[in-house]
Amino acid sequence: MREVFVAGIGITSFTRLEYPLVEIAAYPGLMALRDCGLNKIDQLYVANMGAGRVNHQTGLASAVVDNLSLTPAGADGIENGPASGASAIKQGFMAVASGLHDVVMVIGAERMREVNNLEATDFVATLTHPMAEYIYGVTLPSLAGMFTRLYMEKYGVTSRHLAMVAVKNHQHAMDNFYAHIHEPITIEGILDSPEASTNNPYVADPLRFYDCCPVSDGAACLILTTADIARKTGKPLVRLAGVGQATDTHSVADRKEPTDLLAVREAARKSFEMAGVKPSDVSVAELHDAFTILEIVESEEVGFFPKGQGHIALAEGATKLGGKLPINPSGGLKAKGHPVGATGVGQAHEIVLQLRGEAGKRQVKNAKVGFTCNFGGFGNNVVCLTFVKEK
Amino acid sequence: MREVFVAGIGITSFTRLEYPLVEIAAYPGLMALRDCGLNKIDQLYVANMGAGRVNHQTGLASAVVDNLSLTPAGADGIENGPASGASAIKQGFMAVASGLHDVVMVIGAERMREVNNLEATDFVATLTHPMAEYIYGVTLPSLAGMFTRLYMEKYGVTSRHLAMVAVKNHQHAMDNFYAHIHEPITIEGILDSPEASTNNPYVADPLRFYDCCPVSDGAACLILTTADIARKTGKPLVRLAGVGQATDTHSVADRKEPTDLLAVREAARKSFEMAGVKPSDVSVAELHDAFTILEIVESEEVGFFPKGQGHIALAEGATKLGGKLPINPSGGLKAKGHPVGATGVGQAHEIVLQLRGEAGKRQVKNAKVGFTCNFGGFGNNVVCLTFVKEK
Repeated sequence: MREVFVAGIGITSFTRLEYPLVEIAAYPGLMALRDCGLNKIDQLYVANMGAGRVNHQTGLASAVVDNLSLTPAGADGIENGPASGASAIKQGFMAVASGLHDVVMVIGAERMREVNNLEATDFVATLTHPMAEYIYGVTLPSLAGMFTRLYMEKYGVTSRHLAMVAVKNHQHAMDNFYAHIHEPITIEGILDSPEASTNNPYVADPLRFYDCCPVSDGAACLILTTADIARKTGKPLVRLAGVGQATDTHSVADRKEPTDLLAVREAARKSFEMAGVKPSDVSVAELHDAFTILEIVESEEVGFFPKGQGHIALAEGATKLGGKLPINPSGGLKAKGHPVGATGVGQAHEIVLQLRGEAGKRQVKNAKVGFTCNFGGFGNNVVCLTFVKEK
Repeated sequence: MREVFVAGIGITSFTRLEYPLVEIAAYPGLMALRDCGLNKIDQLYVANMGAGRVNHQTGLASAVVDNLSLTPAGADGIENGPASGASAIKQGFMAVASGLHDVVMVIGAERMREVNNLEATDFVATLTHPMAEYIYGVTLPSLAGMFTRLYMEKYGVTSRHLAMVAVKNHQHAMDNFYAHIHEPITIEGILDSPEASTNNPYVADPLRFYDCCPVSDGAACLILTTADIARKTGKPLVRLAGVGQATDTHSVADRKEPTDLLAVREAARKSFEMAGVKPSDVSVAELHDAFTILEIVESEEVGFFPKGQGHIALAEGATKLGGKLPINPSGGLKAKGHPVGATGVGQAHEIVLQLRGEAGKRQVKNAKVGFTCNFGGFGNNVVCLTFVKEK
């Protein structure tokens, strides 16, 4: 198996973007080509979840490869719900690792705000089980609300811990130009003040407004290649060293213990094993905090903290910038934004910046091993990636 | 790069299927597992084009892997329009070739008839260029109609040649239990008889009803694996020896010569080169005859006949069962049916049957090299596969 490196990267702001989806997707592709000086690719993957439903478009990858004048390169669309981005990176990894292709562009792109918030929520709910969940009114926020209540009862997590995730990630996003939300918040402001009940209303009890990620448009790109080609670009060398994926039951009710996210555990294990590193070797991680509770749980399931103790590490400051293991220095889905198909590529973009030492004010010092967890459905399809800085 | 073999295969009837999409997709997966005796996979790919739009479902691959009780295997959706099926096979190829996975299930599935024919046509038109084509009322049949007129004028193809494709493929489908259409037709009946104007009306001049494939539901499956595992199944050995993909401009009007399908030419060239065979080595082929003209043109562009002479070979009987190079023994998209995301896997299913010698009454004698051409958009993203019978 050939080793796989990241050559170039690019990203748009995660926000409301008033451009056609094809142009949103193409933009970070151009940035990534310029970033590494390449002008030709063998294959393009475009991760996207909603183009058929939300943007009246199929064959998005074919449209993007033409928009970028990169024909006759192959082009395919990858859909794995909100984990589409990391799944597309996995395909890119295999394309280079197998020897079939030398230069592979991976773009994640979504334009969710073409529809209103209600319709966007219904669109994301197409991930739920159509007969066991959706017809009973289940949406992703409602699943997350029920999950959070169970987690609180079992492990002692409180609303204050959830708010700490939001405050931390909003703070991190202040130094990320491309983040959706630039709004510093405090525990006092969103939980304790008299205005909290109106500023921070309940969305799906116990989850409140500031526990949920925004609905974002946006796109990000990684160009993957061989060691030889990566070396010639002159950019700091970042290797995609571990790729792990795992699935769990479609319906959450089918799980023996719903508070255990087995697919996260298994995907992370595979990714670390393949990379030959341990969770304790990780310098910086981007976890999938579509809801604040998820950052806490994932930090446990991937092996950073013992089960049930993620909220304690959070409260001690271990996961903020400057802490022992900074999580979501980009602002995470919570504040950087969550254009679903783009998110996994956006997470990888942040990790590459960190390992290159190009993360500016939010740089994690001496970052050598980076990790991403991209969470699909309600944990029924998870992809974890491990990146290593090389000399 | 590891060699990649087909272990098991499965298929549903291509027809109107009154089951949920997830169950339609899962069924040939079970058949394929039973076919080869395996009961575990490392990864599932599900090719599908319309679930988000037509079936209110995303994360289809995650749903199918759970339905088949194959968790925690990885699962990803692949979308490349009507070429999604062969694109998914390409991903499966790379997964095994790279060494990342040993057993990969590839399913193509579509349930188009959940909507009416008008809506299905609009759904497929999401492939066209949104600003250069769709807003002017362009659909796939209208593009094909204009293309056919040009081809007739340039190369002397007539309506009679088009009808010969339909008659041949309807005849082939008579011996395919899984085909959508079991209706023998004649040139006399669909062109010359007084009833022809009502039985075979114009859809997009010069294309008539019998020049267009039906709107089908259906699914097909291939299990790909290593040489060692394939040998242990005891099934005849079929190797996926060549994988070629190429793209062309999104808008057909941007092409220098619209009658040249450059992506077909390039994808076929790559596929043959990788397999180390020539077009003249091919024993049997499945080409993408969504419209009759396409079988003729593809038979030229992939290298079976010189440009502009496909219709002559057709008229001489070279491409029918018993001819020099049988094309679409399954009945093709024309009569076997065209559940868009499933089609490329269905084509490969037929080729594997033929190379195994399991094609029954439609068996091509001494079939040793098989070829498929899966055509996305209006030729803007094409995937060609070459299969070789091994000892």
